[in-house]
Amino acid sequence: LAGRVAHLGTTVFSEFSALALKHGAMNLGQGFPDFDGPEAVKEAARKAITDGVNQYAPSPGLRDLRVAIAEHGARFHGHTGIDPDTMVTVTSGATEAILCVMLGLVDPGDEAIVFEPFYDSYDANLGFVGAKARYVPLRPPDASHSAWWFDRDEVRAAFGPRTRLLILNTPHNPTGKVFTREELEFLGGLCAEHDVKVLSDEVYEHILFSPARHVRPATVPSLADRTLTVSSAGKSFSLTGWKIGWIIAPPPLRDAVQRAHQFVTFATASPLQAATAAALRMPDAYFQELGAMYLSKRDRLLAGLTEAGLKAYTPEGSYFIIADITGRGFADDVAFCRHLVTEVGVAAIPPSVFYSPEHKHLGQGMARFAFCKTEAVLDEAARRLKVGL
Amino acid sequence: LAGRVAHLGTTVFSEFSALALKHGAMNLGQGFPDFDGPEAVKEAARKAITDGVNQYAPSPGLRDLRVAIAEHGARFHGHTGIDPDTMVTVTSGATEAILCVMLGLVDPGDEAIVFEPFYDSYDANLGFVGAKARYVPLRPPDASHSAWWFDRDEVRAAFGPRTRLLILNTPHNPTGKVFTREELEFLGGLCAEHDVKVLSDEVYEHILFSPARHVRPATVPSLADRTLTVSSAGKSFSLTGWKIGWIIAPPPLRDAVQRAHQFVTFATASPLQAATAAALRMPDAYFQELGAMYLSKRDRLLAGLTEAGLKAYTPEGSYFIIADITGRGFADDVAFCRHLVTEVGVAAIPPSVFYSPEHKHLGQGMARFAFCKTEAVLDEAARRLKVGL
Ligand SMILES: CSCCC(=O)C(=O)O
Ligand SMILES: CSCCC(=O)C(=O)O
Repeated sequence: LAGRVAHLGTTVFSEFSALALKHGAMNLGQGFPDFDGPEAVKEAARKAITDGVNQYAPSPGLRDLRVAIAEHGARFHGHTGIDPDTMVTVTSGATEAILCVMLGLVDPGDEAIVFEPFYDSYDANLGFVGAKARYVPLRPPDASHSAWWFDRDEVRAAFGPRTRLLILNTPHNPTGKVFTREELEFLGGLCAEHDVKVLSDEVYEHILFSPARHVRPATVPSLADRTLTVSSAGKSFSLTGWKIGWIIAPPPLRDAVQRAHQFVTFATASPLQAATAAALRMPDAYFQELGAMYLSKRDRLLAGLTEAGLKAYTPEGSYFIIADITGRGFADDVAFCRHLVTEVGVAAIPPSVFYSPEHKHLGQGMARFAFCKTEAVLDEAARRLKVGL
Repeated sequence: LAGRVAHLGTTVFSEFSALALKHGAMNLGQGFPDFDGPEAVKEAARKAITDGVNQYAPSPGLRDLRVAIAEHGARFHGHTGIDPDTMVTVTSGATEAILCVMLGLVDPGDEAIVFEPFYDSYDANLGFVGAKARYVPLRPPDASHSAWWFDRDEVRAAFGPRTRLLILNTPHNPTGKVFTREELEFLGGLCAEHDVKVLSDEVYEHILFSPARHVRPATVPSLADRTLTVSSAGKSFSLTGWKIGWIIAPPPLRDAVQRAHQFVTFATASPLQAATAAALRMPDAYFQELGAMYLSKRDRLLAGLTEAGLKAYTPEGSYFIIADITGRGFADDVAFCRHLVTEVGVAAIPPSVFYSPEHKHLGQGMARFAFCKTEAVLDEAARRLKVGL
């Protein structure tokens, strides 16, 4: 066992999906839809297979997909000027994209600033490249904050001479926070001052609840030259198993990522790339309906959690809800989630795994519930929680 | 740009595929078939998409594919006792599998023994994990050797206290060498003595020409406990663009690889995994016909190269032929291959990129031609070589 993996266990997603299966629990743990993606996109994939789009794609991705990624960025996020030939690389999901950013840009001993709670691969990948994470906690909404927020002094203090990367995730998993333009401008100012690059993970870009609006960090002037935008097809098209992700970055940064990518996976499933191009070109109505569907699911689960006596924070985006579990007599979030999956029949994710050891206590009073599930599953989960909690 | 990618250019495969396209050359460079995979396997993929196998696979892979991998190993290679639950991880092609072996097992400062010429990702990946490669050249057939061979003293001398991994590739790209049982036993003895693990890349396991026989290193007693077997669907099923690979290893070694894999890509395209299970279960006749088809293509290209006045080494396996280009007035293999693609209209790969700086001269007198191409392309390439060389 190499040192860089010695401290890593099985991801919490695998662990709780397996527990959910074993105990017949409603799986509100791992974030995958229990419904299928759009028929037109599936048909595009079948057609690509039939038509023989079955050999290696160019390592940066099928050109038609790179064009579609550029067009989609301009259409939805005002992200204009994306050159498909020099600014896009297609990866095996956002997970690979994130690793390639670190392999391409971060040297051993460098530092990266990470908001907590964080998606667990950020931390593991920083370990892979020998970098050190500096953590800044996001704080839950309170009397003076209507949304999750961060302390600006804490962010400022996290910057130092070895800071190479700031990792953003907006909409944010697991809190559902959507970073505002004003917050991004503040962060952009610090990044410009310290010459720090930004990795912006935007896989929930289309799962967003009004009045929140997705601001793409790459469209904030102080961040434009320094941001690597990562996204994927999985969440926007309910096809998490296809593992088509991508990265958009200014040519020198994309070049660094591409150098890594060619020796990480080389290229990604050609027929699914072709179908993802079709997906990104779907009419606006598709994306509006996706948002409306998730708004309805969010409110359904929020109501269910409230009915069961849990205090839940209303997410502005993503398909996750954080609930407050303090004062219920459980030692911590892991104990709560184990009880939930084995005794109550509902799987949720214990958020303390998304915190550094130093701030783990912040996650221990919460549980994360996913609402990318059919109404029947959301309702049965709510029923079980009301009866069993 | 991080130090670990600063010295990396674009892979030679991307470079020469692009040149082939630009100059309308017959592409005998990058190793992808210009014909399609089996209809039954494509149909299995379309059906999986239709049936909704579109969400995250478990990180180690769909269980049915892991079972099929185990059965296939026993059926074709006498590799019995593969437990699908603790000994298999499915990856995004063999390329990701190789990286995960290094991330999971090799610490910075460790050494790996690599036969030259080598597949270029080995070297890049060792750089990613901060390890040092010790190179041992394979020597072409000569008066006293009927096949590519290595000097046993050179191998012995490459082992040292920091040696962690020996990298094998059999059938071997680009030489077409198939390691014999006797050679593997010799290597196994050294690995056992020095407690070294073996990464065995066997992606050409079904492209093999009698009397050569594929001996899977994991079935050699001294290697059984220490070998990580990597293979993929791309070459065996003429579906290089699907990027379904896998690794088979004793539980503790597979555990190390899985820890890395979950944070490299997490999982691989679910519907293509389902179809690969069907592919691996095809009747023996499919695999026999694949071998017969490639034998015929090999002999066709060998004849064409000979007609054009090139001395070619007959490969025992893989879909590549190395030709001797010395004495033709070119400065080196790169100059030869550039001339070939721009002036003659045939793309080949310059093998010096598969050598360490120290041994680069060994590759400079050769060119690699791929014969995974239709007869029309092989014949037109032969015609152009005869006319233009
Ligand atoms: C790659 S499994 C994780 C899925 C997901 O995005 C989540 O549940 O947070
Ligand atoms: C991943 S592109 C390389 C294809 C191949 O195996 C080769 O041409 O050697």
